[in-house]
Amino acid sequence: MVNLAKMVPADDLIPDDLLRRCLDHVLRTQGSRALTYAPLEGLPSLRELIVADLARQGVPAHADDLLITTGSQQGLDLVARVLLDPGDVALMELPSYVGAISAFRNVGASMVGVRQETDGIDLDHLEHTVVRLRAEGRRVKMLYLVPNFQNPTGLLISLPKRTAVLEWADRHDVLIVEDDPYRDIYFPDVSTEADTRPIVADDRSGRVVYLSSFSKTLAPGFRVGWVSAPPAVAAKLELSKQAEDLCTGGLDQRIVYEACRRGLLESHLPRLRAHYQQKRDTMVAAIAREMPDQVSWIAPRGGFFLWVALSHGATSAEVMPLAQARGVIFVDGHAFFVDGTGQEFMRLSFSAPSPTRIDEGIARLASAVKEAGSYARSAT
Amino acid sequence: MVNLAKMVPADDLIPDDLLRRCLDHVLRTQGSRALTYAPLEGLPSLRELIVADLARQGVPAHADDLLITTGSQQGLDLVARVLLDPGDVALMELPSYVGAISAFRNVGASMVGVRQETDGIDLDHLEHTVVRLRAEGRRVKMLYLVPNFQNPTGLLISLPKRTAVLEWADRHDVLIVEDDPYRDIYFPDVSTEADTRPIVADDRSGRVVYLSSFSKTLAPGFRVGWVSAPPAVAAKLELSKQAEDLCTGGLDQRIVYEACRRGLLESHLPRLRAHYQQKRDTMVAAIAREMPDQVSWIAPRGGFFLWVALSHGATSAEVMPLAQARGVIFVDGHAFFVDGTGQEFMRLSFSAPSPTRIDEGIARLASAVKEAGSYARSAT
Repeated sequence: MVNLAKMVPADDLIPDDLLRRCLDHVLRTQGSRALTYAPLEGLPSLRELIVADLARQGVPAHADDLLITTGSQQGLDLVARVLLDPGDVALMELPSYVGAISAFRNVGASMVGVRQETDGIDLDHLEHTVVRLRAEGRRVKMLYLVPNFQNPTGLLISLPKRTAVLEWADRHDVLIVEDDPYRDIYFPDVSTEADTRPIVADDRSGRVVYLSSFSKTLAPGFRVGWVSAPPAVAAKLELSKQAEDLCTGGLDQRIVYEACRRGLLESHLPRLRAHYQQKRDTMVAAIAREMPDQVSWIAPRGGFFLWVALSHGATSAEVMPLAQARGVIFVDGHAFFVDGTGQEFMRLSFSAPSPTRIDEGIARLASAVKEAGSYARSAT
Repeated sequence: MVNLAKMVPADDLIPDDLLRRCLDHVLRTQGSRALTYAPLEGLPSLRELIVADLARQGVPAHADDLLITTGSQQGLDLVARVLLDPGDVALMELPSYVGAISAFRNVGASMVGVRQETDGIDLDHLEHTVVRLRAEGRRVKMLYLVPNFQNPTGLLISLPKRTAVLEWADRHDVLIVEDDPYRDIYFPDVSTEADTRPIVADDRSGRVVYLSSFSKTLAPGFRVGWVSAPPAVAAKLELSKQAEDLCTGGLDQRIVYEACRRGLLESHLPRLRAHYQQKRDTMVAAIAREMPDQVSWIAPRGGFFLWVALSHGATSAEVMPLAQARGVIFVDGHAFFVDGTGQEFMRLSFSAPSPTRIDEGIARLASAVKEAGSYARSAT
């Protein structure tokens, strides 16, 4: 089975030897101290290191308002619990990350979709939506965004749009929840670090809650994410975390800290970028070769995903069993739409499989797509 | 400052050298695989090992219905989210563990207290309470219990009472949430393993949700707990965990598994028991020496805590600043009562400080207690 469904970094890109040395150092120098409860808000050293790193990128943050979370999924869950009461509206891109959708649904939030364009969220539709909802008396609390190489579309929000979104949020007094785990994984052939400047960097009014993690760059097994928020929100997130899991694993935090302190993460990033860029090329070439007339796509400028639209009338759910029978799996794009649409999309991940497996997987998928297309034609 | 407030194992009892060897083995044999996402429900090997261990103790459990959690605090949080709707009643002992109180409060549950006797929960009061609440039309969903060496009282529920509680729950169709992190830490001078037999061991009707963790025995820095539940509940807990943190740290789980597989935990337990038993003796002797007329207590038969009642009319909140001024801190017992009572109780932890520090801490505390008593007398 070729797995194009997994949301994971490639195993062979996890620097396990180097991380093992970090771990060794931690246990040799700190002994049993490294194995006791970590502080609720996270290790001070790690929080300060993240803040310093953010400062270098132009993002103002304070260690006091930065909370280490058990992966960024916990950050999303805490944000939902603290910011959303039942019935509150969270605006979500169409499509949007399923982990956020689950967390927001869990607290009884009402999610309303906003369309995307190729350079990110559709500003006209965003404006129209908030005006309409407010006129209906709905409480619009937040806009959830993945600005860089979004899961599932791989899209990047353009810099002018980021500025415009922030102005929009100020004008309508809406919080922005900016979820940014893929930022470091831009592809140098078509992107630069400047293209990925987070929205929070220009937040002057304290309305952006910013989340990220080390899962996509260092190793996903470490459940170490973080959330930086305006002080009043940060204090509530911390309280909510206490009842949720007391603290994030101390050993994981110490290894991550040590890896960053030594510059290991920094020096690892160019390799990651080159690796995933090449795999994107492999997948795009395979799709262009195998099924150019059946699907359309936009080659991503970073991240892990290729978002593919079926153009022949079949749905992703119809392709799925045919694909599985041929030995390839992917994720049905439908799950990422809070408005129930998106039946024609497939999310294909190129991060984990090898180039050879990507070629094989796309060949199998193309055969399934074509068969589904022939059924769709005969039905109409 | 002598810290008698901390809910932590003694640092010098964390077998960091042995755990380091386990870790080394894990990374050497599994490499980067050990650093990828763990399965949502936890590592199969660890779940099977826990189930086998439970079976040896007479507890029927199935790996499919056992979920690894990010510490047992997450287990409590998931239980709250899955089992309690706003307004549902959770019956709680007076006093009860604050971590559970926070988790249940977070979901809008209504907590109603049930008195304790020296051998555990007061069965008459339990019966009376459920009958009264049901007559009022309240939805009584669960009874939360810490059967062994409860935090904060250190009490053990007697075996006949465990049987009676289970019968009571069957009769009234109430779930029991049995939180059991201290079970392994019985003191051999006054307890045996048989005294700690979990309620779930005799559950024939699938109404006990059973939680524990490795934090009190192996090391708290590993955020590895677990919850075993009836199948329908287990499936919901798993779904809820997915939105909360995707998975528990894989490296932590692998080290814990390796430590258990090698018998390290098993061989470590007698040392833990002897150590904490001796510290309990130290603290009890110090209190009997320093303030026999001002306080009363029951020497615990296991666990980390000594629960002390002020008998001279002062409250724990009045003692607190006087104690801090003398260089000792403890936890105000009031926080553990869901009915707003308990002002006269102090929770003293003997787990972390050395015997010398315990002696010093109790001497300081006695001075504070006596001063608070003299104010209380002059006020009446």
